[in-house]
Amino acid sequence: MSRPLTLLVVGFILGSWPMRRGVADEGMWLPTDLPAEALQAQYGFALTEAFRTKLMLASVRFPGASGGFVSPDGLVVTNHHVGSDAIQKLSTPGRDLMRDGYTARTRADELPCPDLELNVLQSIEDVTARIAAAVTPAMAPAAAAAARRAVTGDIEKESFTKTGLRSEVVTLYQGGLYHLYRSKKYTDVRLVFAPESAIAAFGGDVDNFEYPRTSLDVAFFRAYENGKPARVPHYFRWSAAGPAENDLVLVTGHPGTTNRLETLAKLKHRRDVTLPYDLARLRAYEAAMIQFSEQSPAKRREAATVLHGLANRRKAFAGQLQGLLDAGVMAQKAASEEELMRPTLAGVQPVQVTGPLTDRYPGTAWAKVAAAQTRLTAFEREYALLERADAFFSDLYPVARHCVRLADELPKPNADRLREYRDSNLDSLKLTLYSPAPVSRGLELARLAAALTFLAEQLGGEHPTVVKLLAGKSPADRAADLAAGTKLADVAERKRLVEGGRTAVEASADPLVKLAKLIDADARALRKRYEDEVEEVERQAYAAIADVRFKAFGKAVAPDATFTLRLAFGTVKGYAVEGKTLPFHTTFGDAYRRWEDLEKRDPFALPPRWVERRAKLDRATPFNFVSTADTIGGNSGSPVLNRAGEVVGVNFDRNRHGLVRNFVYTDVQARHVAVHSRAVIEALTKVYDAQALADELTATTPETP
Amino acid sequence: MSRPLTLLVVGFILGSWPMRRGVADEGMWLPTDLPAEALQAQYGFALTEAFRTKLMLASVRFPGASGGFVSPDGLVVTNHHVGSDAIQKLSTPGRDLMRDGYTARTRADELPCPDLELNVLQSIEDVTARIAAAVTPAMAPAAAAAARRAVTGDIEKESFTKTGLRSEVVTLYQGGLYHLYRSKKYTDVRLVFAPESAIAAFGGDVDNFEYPRTSLDVAFFRAYENGKPARVPHYFRWSAAGPAENDLVLVTGHPGTTNRLETLAKLKHRRDVTLPYDLARLRAYEAAMIQFSEQSPAKRREAATVLHGLANRRKAFAGQLQGLLDAGVMAQKAASEEELMRPTLAGVQPVQVTGPLTDRYPGTAWAKVAAAQTRLTAFEREYALLERADAFFSDLYPVARHCVRLADELPKPNADRLREYRDSNLDSLKLTLYSPAPVSRGLELARLAAALTFLAEQLGGEHPTVVKLLAGKSPADRAADLAAGTKLADVAERKRLVEGGRTAVEASADPLVKLAKLIDADARALRKRYEDEVEEVERQAYAAIADVRFKAFGKAVAPDATFTLRLAFGTVKGYAVEGKTLPFHTTFGDAYRRWEDLEKRDPFALPPRWVERRAKLDRATPFNFVSTADTIGGNSGSPVLNRAGEVVGVNFDRNRHGLVRNFVYTDVQARHVAVHSRAVIEALTKVYDAQALADELTATTPETP
Repeated sequence: MSRPLTLLVVGFILGSWPMRRGVADEGMWLPTDLPAEALQAQYGFALTEAFRTKLMLASVRFPGASGGFVSPDGLVVTNHHVGSDAIQKLSTPGRDLMRDGYTARTRADELPCPDLELNVLQSIEDVTARIAAAVTPAMAPAAAAAARRAVTGDIEKESFTKTGLRSEVVTLYQGGLYHLYRSKKYTDVRLVFAPESAIAAFGGDVDNFEYPRTSLDVAFFRAYENGKPARVPHYFRWSAAGPAENDLVLVTGHPGTTNRLETLAKLKHRRDVTLPYDLARLRAYEAAMIQFSEQSPAKRREAATVLHGLANRRKAFAGQLQGLLDAGVMAQKAASEEELMRPTLAGVQPVQVTGPLTDRYPGTAWAKVAAAQTRLTAFEREYALLERADAFFSDLYPVARHCVRLADELPKPNADRLREYRDSNLDSLKLTLYSPAPVSRGLELARLAAALTFLAEQLGGEHPTVVKLLAGKSPADRAADLAAGTKLADVAERKRLVEGGRTAVEASADPLVKLAKLIDADARALRKRYEDEVEEVERQAYAAIADVRFKAFGKAVAPDATFTLRLAFGTVKGYAVEGKTLPFHTTFGDAYRRWEDLEKRDPFALPPRWVERRAKLDRATPFNFVSTADTIGGNSGSPVLNRAGEVVGVNFDRNRHGLVRNFVYTDVQARHVAVHSRAVIEALTKVYDAQALADELTATTPETP
Repeated sequence: MSRPLTLLVVGFILGSWPMRRGVADEGMWLPTDLPAEALQAQYGFALTEAFRTKLMLASVRFPGASGGFVSPDGLVVTNHHVGSDAIQKLSTPGRDLMRDGYTARTRADELPCPDLELNVLQSIEDVTARIAAAVTPAMAPAAAAAARRAVTGDIEKESFTKTGLRSEVVTLYQGGLYHLYRSKKYTDVRLVFAPESAIAAFGGDVDNFEYPRTSLDVAFFRAYENGKPARVPHYFRWSAAGPAENDLVLVTGHPGTTNRLETLAKLKHRRDVTLPYDLARLRAYEAAMIQFSEQSPAKRREAATVLHGLANRRKAFAGQLQGLLDAGVMAQKAASEEELMRPTLAGVQPVQVTGPLTDRYPGTAWAKVAAAQTRLTAFEREYALLERADAFFSDLYPVARHCVRLADELPKPNADRLREYRDSNLDSLKLTLYSPAPVSRGLELARLAAALTFLAEQLGGEHPTVVKLLAGKSPADRAADLAAGTKLADVAERKRLVEGGRTAVEASADPLVKLAKLIDADARALRKRYEDEVEEVERQAYAAIADVRFKAFGKAVAPDATFTLRLAFGTVKGYAVEGKTLPFHTTFGDAYRRWEDLEKRDPFALPPRWVERRAKLDRATPFNFVSTADTIGGNSGSPVLNRAGEVVGVNFDRNRHGLVRNFVYTDVQARHVAVHSRAVIEALTKVYDAQALADELTATTPETP
């Protein structure tokens, strides 16, 4: 039901989007390349150096998501759904923090999270030239990929050795630029406050990617150092007022993935191959998790986080597919690609006179990307099933594989290792690998059964991999054996295997370890094939395309999202759907109205505390609001700032019109959705009696220099 | 979790199943070929001619399911889930018969169902010879298929003209036998009693295909003739006592589909192509329906019946796939096929010396079935999407297509028409086509959006069919246009189109009619291709295989299920799972225990009436029971009879161990599940105050001759 797309596509064509900044608020901007001119020109906002510094040092990276420091004592705000993995892991029989929420009354009550790591970006260095020097044009793709892996490993290792900071080479513009990002890491992170999941995700899957919205999707954690709250030099103050309509807002965070600069051939590949496969997989897993959940309230709790993640991705991918199946969107993509490509074809002889430009000019970078998709199609499913481990949907299979691979990788020189086993990544890996978080054997069984069944459906019952992995059993029976037999739920066993190295792994009779060993050579071969035949070819081709784009437009087009720190900006405003104008914010009153209209039942059941205290709350309090700023998945938990750099909201979603933003930016109806800063204070004080936390947020302590 | 399969497979191999009657209670027997000898030998039960006559004339066929007369006044028992389509259609805003149930206090309160047709088999005639004479060995497959269609049409038309009875040629043994079935039709059918869906389907999808079970999955209808309750000469008396452990029971009904006599190649095709496709489709539709349902209680009610059907098939197909992925099951299938095939190969020169027998002996019937699967793979998805109309999951698209096709078909001679438009089928077709049952536009939109998206996922965005059907829009937008624009929810508009014939259809601007026209030539071509290249080839090959089997074993192997009347028999007994013995029946007390253990929430929430009256009920009343009788989908609603021909239960499901019964019979753990006859009387009298209905069931009126 993305009817307005047709309208906005017309807009794109007129504006010749997306090659230049045709749409005002487009862009997820690099910290090194902030849109100071645009902010000045469009909003009269002067981006100061101090603001820039604070953006970098007060923004916090959660795994795959965002947050920000909001007090000098290391207090961090993010979304409840970002924190839910940690909140779930802190729950025990008799203490269900997802259902009941949690408020630490004192610092001593703050609960240490078993495996949560936060990162704060400290510096950025352009390493494009060094990488370009190591990967020479004469190299064949496999050699080039090896050289690129090696130089990347060297850069990261050198940086880590020199600074002790987490060091990561980031690929931008699909290979057009390489930056070295150094981050400070916090591994002692404690839960300060979480609301009940029923209000954090009010409306559940129904409301996900929808607006109007009424969710308190926030949680607070605190970073600790040396057993004490971290003293952080930069943080965002909390605005008690929140945003007004038409205000400028700035969103700082770690948007994950966009595909706006991808070629037409890549987008068609996503539309016809990748997304249909991923949707089939997500639906298979989601169906299995729903069936598991329905068996009892206890199982429902066990599967809740996994299920939420699946439903969220299923909905996002479904929205992407709708966008790519819209002929208008694809026609626009084709037109803009041709506009960029045409000038480069002057004087080049086409090999044929009809068909797509990539067929006519097979020597171009665009044609090379197209050819890589053809190669990818031949093995993409096997790659995803075995190396991405789609066939082993589970918490413990990744543990088994890490044990197997660590035994093989650690004896190698750093630069020769698979990326995740390089020295600079080992501490973070061990944090998750040795997490004491409980593992549900029943959930493992249900997940593995769904995944092994999906494997067989995808490859067929006589595929050698399927025959090998099922070992003569049905998928359900094989999963039952794996789940019943593994000892990897025990962290001591994991440590024993990792510390025992190859000898211990070879001797292990653990069925999951044996499974990981059984398939490892195949999985590694697929990874190498992917890196050599697809990734490296794309890197080189996109680097060439980026050159063309830089020459034409400079850096006026932001790179696609890469889970690294970006700034977006936009205007707080509502929009019209089917003739009806939706306001820029909702209120607590709206939540209570929907609760009553929808018979107070799940997912519209309010938590008991919200029911009991409903007379105390000011129902006119703004609850959620929207703006035109350019966000995507990964921006969850992003602080939304006003001109003064104060938090006026916490981004937690975008609406369904924004689902197409992977491919095109639009501000006609697409909006991101944030929790209003006033709602947080009102709820903390009136519902949760968390006055101390509210005071910490609104205190006027000066920043330490 | 079908661990016991491995055990039972060993049993098969030892017993050389399924070529002869190695397992005691196997078989869904034809009324013309009842297992009198086996019943005498195994159970000392003498099958009388009177019993045989009553089986045929008191068994009632529901669309795709079963039931039986249980009073001389046309009272019919079936399952609630069989009646739910009718029950849902009788619901109106303010009268939710699914949620609240229904009890007609007097005959005047019995509610006429808008489009329910019941059939009662009257006679059976073997027409194999006439068909064999019309289809000669010299004919090419397309000509043979045409000849077979023509002679079938002639037989049905002649019978219908002569008798006025619904006349249908039934294919048995996949083409080994052809029988003409004549049925008496009842189209004035009224709802007498339905329990609340919460107790009819207690445990919902969680309990579906599981045991122990506690569901009151029964409903009562009454057949009317000339505005009065039909006086029926044969009916099954109700047993107030029900069955005891180890009793013989006989199950009469219309099992739908088994695949036990299919060749190994066909089963592998199902495993690797058909079932994965169907599961992907069911999961896509189910996900869409769940999302629709969660939006509000009203939408949940609208989608309930559709969703139940999807979940049920998803679970059944998933169980089938697990069975076919079990290497033991397939090895047994291969061994029994080889045993049947070997003697026919004496003196035949193989074309190669290794590989499957079907490759070595390409001239055999088994090889022809294998070759047909290869051809089918090339177009099966398109066939399913367009001709089976998977791409148009909807209530109104079938209406549109019937309008379009009736305009083309009715002017043709009877025998040249597509089967569903032959004279003998037209009355039944119009009953559903002109059904005044309400259609939810929102549900239509959600279903069409899911289906058109699935179409694009399956064929890709540039497939000509996808481009043609989407007409430049995203699937969601296209579905919105179709759902908003069609007038086919109005029965008068349907009649106008059908009565206006080709002129009216050609002139129609209805978007669904235009869609049906747009795709009809493609869909018909796929149907012809399927009939000529696959179905006809299989018919001939299976006829040859059936000959081999008949020569070896006579009719000691029952034909695969075909939705026609069959008799199964078995023993009432429990079974062991993971060392624990499950009793042969459950009790009302079990239902109340689970209600409390599972926090009284959906799908384990009891209806208010069951909560209020819980003190009145005898909790020791047997509720559901199991037996070894051989059933499959389509047996839903089957009367379960004792030696006296009395109803001791109403079959409504089989357990998960029985899901593999499509391919192999087993009685180690596989059971069908039935509502106990005593539970029905106890509930009618104590919960529903339906004493009159209970009296009608237990009255001792003699049968009219």
